[in-house]
Amino acid sequence: MQNFKAILDDICETAKNAKEKGTVASYIPELAAVDKNNFGIHLRTLDGLDYGAGNFETPFSIQSISKVLALSKAMALIGESVWKRVDVEPSGHPFNQLALLEIENGIPRNPLINSGAIVIADILLSHLKNPKEDFLNYVRELANDTNINYNTAVANSEKNTGFKNYAAANLLKSFNNLENPVDAVLDFYFHQCSIEMSCSQVSKAFFFLSNKGGDLKKIAQLTESQAKRINAIMLTCGFYDEAGEFAFEVGLPGKSGVGGGIVALLPDHYIITTWSPGLNKKGNSLLGMLALEQFTTKTKLSIF
Amino acid sequence: MQNFKAILDDICETAKNAKEKGTVASYIPELAAVDKNNFGIHLRTLDGLDYGAGNFETPFSIQSISKVLALSKAMALIGESVWKRVDVEPSGHPFNQLALLEIENGIPRNPLINSGAIVIADILLSHLKNPKEDFLNYVRELANDTNINYNTAVANSEKNTGFKNYAAANLLKSFNNLENPVDAVLDFYFHQCSIEMSCSQVSKAFFFLSNKGGDLKKIAQLTESQAKRINAIMLTCGFYDEAGEFAFEVGLPGKSGVGGGIVALLPDHYIITTWSPGLNKKGNSLLGMLALEQFTTKTKLSIF
Amino acid sequence: MQNFKAILDDICETAKNAKEKGTVASYIPELAAVDKNNFGIHLRTLDGLDYGAGNFETPFSIQSISKVLALSKAMALIGESVWKRVDVEPSGHPFNQLALLEIENGIPRNPLINSGAIVIADILLSHLKNPKEDFLNYVRELANDTNINYNTAVANSEKNTGFKNYAAANLLKSFNNLENPVDAVLDFYFHQCSIEMSCSQVSKAFFFLSNKGGDLKKIAQLTESQAKRINAIMLTCGFYDEAGEFAFEVGLPGKSGVGGGIVALLPDHYIITTWSPGLNKKGNSLLGMLALEQFTTKTKLSIF
Amino acid sequence: MQNFKAILDDICETAKNAKEKGTVASYIPELAAVDKNNFGIHLRTLDGLDYGAGNFETPFSIQSISKVLALSKAMALIGESVWKRVDVEPSGHPFNQLALLEIENGIPRNPLINSGAIVIADILLSHLKNPKEDFLNYVRELANDTNINYNTAVANSEKNTGFKNYAAANLLKSFNNLENPVDAVLDFYFHQCSIEMSCSQVSKAFFFLSNKGGDLKKIAQLTESQAKRINAIMLTCGFYDEAGEFAFEVGLPGKSGVGGGIVALLPDHYIITTWSPGLNKKGNSLLGMLALEQFTTKTKLSIF
Repeated sequence: MQNFKAILDDICETAKNAKEKGTVASYIPELAAVDKNNFGIHLRTLDGLDYGAGNFETPFSIQSISKVLALSKAMALIGESVWKRVDVEPSGHPFNQLALLEIENGIPRNPLINSGAIVIADILLSHLKNPKEDFLNYVRELANDTNINYNTAVANSEKNTGFKNYAAANLLKSFNNLENPVDAVLDFYFHQCSIEMSCSQVSKAFFFLSNKGGDLKKIAQLTESQAKRINAIMLTCGFYDEAGEFAFEVGLPGKSGVGGGIVALLPDHYIITTWSPGLNKKGNSLLGMLALEQFTTKTKLSIF
Repeated sequence: MQNFKAILDDICETAKNAKEKGTVASYIPELAAVDKNNFGIHLRTLDGLDYGAGNFETPFSIQSISKVLALSKAMALIGESVWKRVDVEPSGHPFNQLALLEIENGIPRNPLINSGAIVIADILLSHLKNPKEDFLNYVRELANDTNINYNTAVANSEKNTGFKNYAAANLLKSFNNLENPVDAVLDFYFHQCSIEMSCSQVSKAFFFLSNKGGDLKKIAQLTESQAKRINAIMLTCGFYDEAGEFAFEVGLPGKSGVGGGIVALLPDHYIITTWSPGLNKKGNSLLGMLALEQFTTKTKLSIF
Repeated sequence: MQNFKAILDDICETAKNAKEKGTVASYIPELAAVDKNNFGIHLRTLDGLDYGAGNFETPFSIQSISKVLALSKAMALIGESVWKRVDVEPSGHPFNQLALLEIENGIPRNPLINSGAIVIADILLSHLKNPKEDFLNYVRELANDTNINYNTAVANSEKNTGFKNYAAANLLKSFNNLENPVDAVLDFYFHQCSIEMSCSQVSKAFFFLSNKGGDLKKIAQLTESQAKRINAIMLTCGFYDEAGEFAFEVGLPGKSGVGGGIVALLPDHYIITTWSPGLNKKGNSLLGMLALEQFTTKTKLSIF
Repeated sequence: MQNFKAILDDICETAKNAKEKGTVASYIPELAAVDKNNFGIHLRTLDGLDYGAGNFETPFSIQSISKVLALSKAMALIGESVWKRVDVEPSGHPFNQLALLEIENGIPRNPLINSGAIVIADILLSHLKNPKEDFLNYVRELANDTNINYNTAVANSEKNTGFKNYAAANLLKSFNNLENPVDAVLDFYFHQCSIEMSCSQVSKAFFFLSNKGGDLKKIAQLTESQAKRINAIMLTCGFYDEAGEFAFEVGLPGKSGVGGGIVALLPDHYIITTWSPGLNKKGNSLLGMLALEQFTTKTKLSIF
């Protein structure tokens, strides 16, 4: 067995000393205020290791990382019916997100781009009794931690500035691909994205996806096939238009968020989560990407 | 002088007897309920003729025809500054309206497509003291007729189904090309489109555009250059992706609306308005287009 | 009657003294070598005036102006069948010419964009016995001047650099919208564009379009309806993505070429041709556009 | 160790008995003539198994499968410089291939779509002394088999019908992303695609990609990192707009060809090749896709 602890400590020190730390998202004040000197990394293996370095216990805004958990819940609720309303193919360039949606008649390319995640939010809204409460409980259950919450200030800021999301949701609605009112769907969606978790909490919550669907308490949250589906989607679609680059540089299914978090996993082996608020030009955490590259280069534990 | 009355009567009779009448717009109940046997035609010449045939005094929903009057008012208010926020070129195919807006950074192609008209509505909202009241008064003044009103039921129906307009408005907002809140802009826009006028009222209201900017009472509503600008835009952009066809078949600047109205004009000569609720596949009034073709063929009074 | 001669002389002097003269096309050496101090303007009226100023008798490369004459010949040969293979609507932005062609299944938007003009060239190639010879004779006949020729050096340079045209032609071929081999079509097309004419020759050649189809010798080259169709297309599509601007600023059907020529006409009244090799950012002659604006502003003889 | 032989035999029998066999490519006569009752499957493991079933020794036209080998050779020749001229991200929908190329300034999305493969062909043409001979020798060396050849009839047929490839190549040329003449590049490209190999030959030729770059004779054809890069690209881009679906259903890096072949591999474990000429609606071999799904489902040997 490799000395994972030393590797994580080493990566953390390199990151803490990095001169170039990227640019913190500034479109809402809550994200803009985060100190970009934060860096956390956490590893959980299926055989029991649970180790972190740096700010791995500091909660951060998980943002788009939540899309994976929302998708999991939707698949648990309605199974393969999800794919009637959203596709599983990589999307094109970010400049033409709405264009693609228009041309493809309101069926988003995949559930990890915003329009696809909004459709998933609509599904949850239709099938959960108390949507916000139930979804939060789902995340808490996955992470086996009741100390996880929405950040209402973040959700409200998104509401005031998320015009592209409103545009996408209305376009989906015009194609009859939303069952609920636009405002209700986006209220849920913005809350979902506002969840705050630490690296170690994210690693725990994603445990089931590396473990054939079974969570930390051995409860089957998804079937093995469903977990595999989500991993495949994370690999091909998890990093916007840097998906191909990430597949090569890191070689793991994963998902990033604009809050600077990244989670990645090797099926049957481990989950790794990093957090560093500074983003690169493609909108993924600059130091997080580098950290994951270093980790898979040093451990040689990737899918390729 | 030609026998315009006989020509109009003849066209009206042909239209009344037409077997194919097109398809009435059905996306809101108020439009769906209109009887497609209605047909009206009205001509007003600058030298004093004022003659109509058929249902030329029945009010109908002017819809997109209102975009021309809104543009006129915006130009009267802020002049050439309008062109900082909207371009004057024909747009491409309807399938990629939002795509174009995305690629062109939120500057609509022209003020007669929906996104452009929403920007114009935003300008009016910013510069009119009591926007809805003032705009209605402007239209009444142009037509010299106080018996013109909004149809609130129509405006409300649009609000409940106009998701593509909400998508466009939010996209404009994301590019900082709306000053006012999306809901306020669209509330104004949907009211503007809901105005009801008869063919004869429309002919009167558009008088100033064929008369170098001067209205029926000889008040200069626009400069001659501004009136020319609007006529040029109507010619190149007034009929969606049938603009080129209309330019050839009819050869006049004009504007159609989904309520089945069409207004067209020959500068320095006349204004002609038709109304027939059935639309062709491109969304323009089927019999209205044919009527205008007949009129310019018979009178040889077009710009080409 | 206005003093046209004084107006033309005045415009010419202004142009000759202009400081900003635009940028001469440089993609082939033959065009790059042209002196941008050239400026010619020529007017021909239907009632007999024939007057030029500046370099109005110097031959220049007519380039895209030839598309209008090729279209005329195609309509004379096969009439309305032309419209089965090319549409009559304005095109979108230049950046997506091939994109439009792909989406619209190989039917070019109109006969004045390159892909449309290539289809027209294919029609001529199929229907003329000796295509290059016959087309040249057609242009000579229209202009009533046998001293008009192809510039073979220009045609050959286009062949060596016209990769976008080869791309468009092959795409058309893949959609079965070319009957002849790509190389043969483009050889004809590049020759067609290489024709050299002076302003006065162009004015004569376009006479029939302002005269209901009848040329200088009163021969009916087209029907009145066909001439009107071409004028309508020139108005909506003659100036790339500056068509809307030209319609307003000048208010005449017209066509520009990358060699710096522009021809415009007022049906039943006159034809005017300018030549100034420096282009503006949209690829139209900078001083030519200004000259035509001045002319219609001063004479008030435009269609709006 | 699993009973791979029994699994392959079983899959082969199922395929041979399948009622729905897809549609054989018909755009050139040589492909159209292939009998769709052919089905071959072949497995080679890194620990020595070499087993096939059905028509696994019948040569077929490898077509796009050759793109992976051309890319390997290009990387062996010029290393990371390849990525200056072609990107590594999944492409969008097939309908807008040329559109994407236009918008992205002539840099193809990845080396496995046609435009990208044409750039790779251009690189080989520039860097190989005797391009066609040298490339064929490279493929023979990889497969350790001198009995592999071009099919000149196939290459010539492609030349006569490959208008979309000519369009793409000319567009690349217009953006200065081809060093050699279009005809020379496509001549090489069409030959490359015309190579005929059997399933067992393909499995051998792809051995090095599952073996960290080392071929059957332990010669390092690529570095480990380069082999990983190619595997990552095959996973995200190897199956047109079915890449996401294949990543989930099969979960292996792979590449399909219009001749009905598919090769896929699990790094450090095995290479598997199928051949069945009938294609599904997305252009991938219908029975080949199903066979690979069955194989990874039964063996549970995929990357997810």
